[in-house]
Amino acid sequence: MFITFEGIEGSGKTTQIQTTASWLKQKGLTCITTREPGSTDIGSKIRAILLDPLNKNLDHMAEMLLYMADRAHHIGAVVKPALTKGKTILCDRYFDATLAYQGYARGIDIDLLKKLHLLTLNDFKPDLTLLLDLSPETGLARAWEQIDLGARTTAESRFENEKLNFHQKVRAGYLELAKQEPERFRIIDASQNEDQVQENIRKALSSFFPVIKP
Amino acid sequence: MFITFEGIEGSGKTTQIQTTASWLKQKGLTCITTREPGSTDIGSKIRAILLDPLNKNLDHMAEMLLYMADRAHHIGAVVKPALTKGKTILCDRYFDATLAYQGYARGIDIDLLKKLHLLTLNDFKPDLTLLLDLSPETGLARAWEQIDLGARTTAESRFENEKLNFHQKVRAGYLELAKQEPERFRIIDASQNEDQVQENIRKALSSFFPVIKP
Repeated sequence: MFITFEGIEGSGKTTQIQTTASWLKQKGLTCITTREPGSTDIGSKIRAILLDPLNKNLDHMAEMLLYMADRAHHIGAVVKPALTKGKTILCDRYFDATLAYQGYARGIDIDLLKKLHLLTLNDFKPDLTLLLDLSPETGLARAWEQIDLGARTTAESRFENEKLNFHQKVRAGYLELAKQEPERFRIIDASQNEDQVQENIRKALSSFFPVIKP
Repeated sequence: MFITFEGIEGSGKTTQIQTTASWLKQKGLTCITTREPGSTDIGSKIRAILLDPLNKNLDHMAEMLLYMADRAHHIGAVVKPALTKGKTILCDRYFDATLAYQGYARGIDIDLLKKLHLLTLNDFKPDLTLLLDLSPETGLARAWEQIDLGARTTAESRFENEKLNFHQKVRAGYLELAKQEPERFRIIDASQNEDQVQENIRKALSSFFPVIKP
C-alpha cells in the first residue's frame, strides 16, 4: 500500500506520519516513512536547491521539473522496491503537491502537469491520500512557531515566505483535487488537536483498508 | 541568433566556442557564451548533481528531468533575455544533447523526450547547431589527456566513465539528428586540428548567416 499525506505548511503531516507508522507497526504491518522531496542522497541535494530561500528567482517550470526529478528517483529507488517487498509506505507529499503548489498556486497548466506525470511515471498513483486540511492562517502560525522553537530549519522557508494568498490557492487546489478523486482522497480536519487528528487518520485507514482494525 | 555546439566528450566544443566568440566580436557582433548544464547559480548546483561520479545510481528519468530543469531555468534567465537584447548566443550543449545522451544512448523514448521539450519549452530550438563530430576513441583519449593536464576536473567524469559503446551510441544519435534536420545542423569534422576545425566553423557560420563574412 502506498499512502500519501498532503497538506499546506503547518498541517502537521510530519508528526502524524510518525505516529501513524508506529500504530501500523503495532498492528503488525511492515511500514516505512518517506518524503518528497529529499528522501534519497541525490534527492536531498535537489531538496536543498528547492527550499533554499536564496533561490527566490528559480524559474517556475524549472522548479516543477526539479520536483519531478526528485520524484522519479524516489519512486525508482525507494517506493517501488518497498512495494515489491510488500511494505506499507507512508509518504510526506507526492504528485498532488505538484498539482497544488506548482499548478493551482503558481499557475502552471494542470493538464500539462498531468501529461508530464503520465510521461515520466506512467501516472503512478497512491492507493490512498490523506489530505490534512486547515486554514493557511492557522498552518503558517504553527509553522513559524516551530521555526522559533528550532524544530524546523530556516532552509524550509522558501515556501513559508510566500504570501498568504499563495497558501490559500494551495489549499483550494488540494480541496479541488480531493473533490475530483473522492475514492482516493480522505479529508482530515487538521485544525483539531494532534490526538483528534490521529484518531481521524486511524478511522480513515481502517475504513479504507478493512485489514486494519481501529 | 541562438547557436548551439554539440558533440561527444573531447570533441573540442569548449575551446572552439571561445575562439568563435572572439572572432564574432571582431566582426562587431555582441556575443555571449553559455553552457548546459550549469550556467546559472542554480544550474551549477544541478550540474554538480549530474556530473558527480558518486551519483552513479541516479535514475535515468530523474537524470533527464534534471537536465530539463537546468534548461528551463537557463532559457528563462539567460538565453531569452539575451536574445531580446539582440545578442548572439553560443551555447555549449542544448536539447539535442538530451536526445543523444538520455535518448539514443540511455534508451529513453525519443518521442517522449520531444513531447517533454514541447510541453516545458514550447519546442524552443536553436537557429543553428554545429555538430563537432569525431570518433569516441579519439574524443575520450583527448578528454582523459585534459584531465591528466588538470584542464578538466574529475567532477566531469560521470559521463567519461561510461563505456565506449555508450559514446558510440551518443555519436550515432547526434548524426541521426543531423540527418533529420539538415537545415538546422552543420556537421564539422572535429578529428582535425584546432585551427582547421575553427576554419570550418567560420565557413559554416558565414554560409548560414550571410551577414557574417568569413
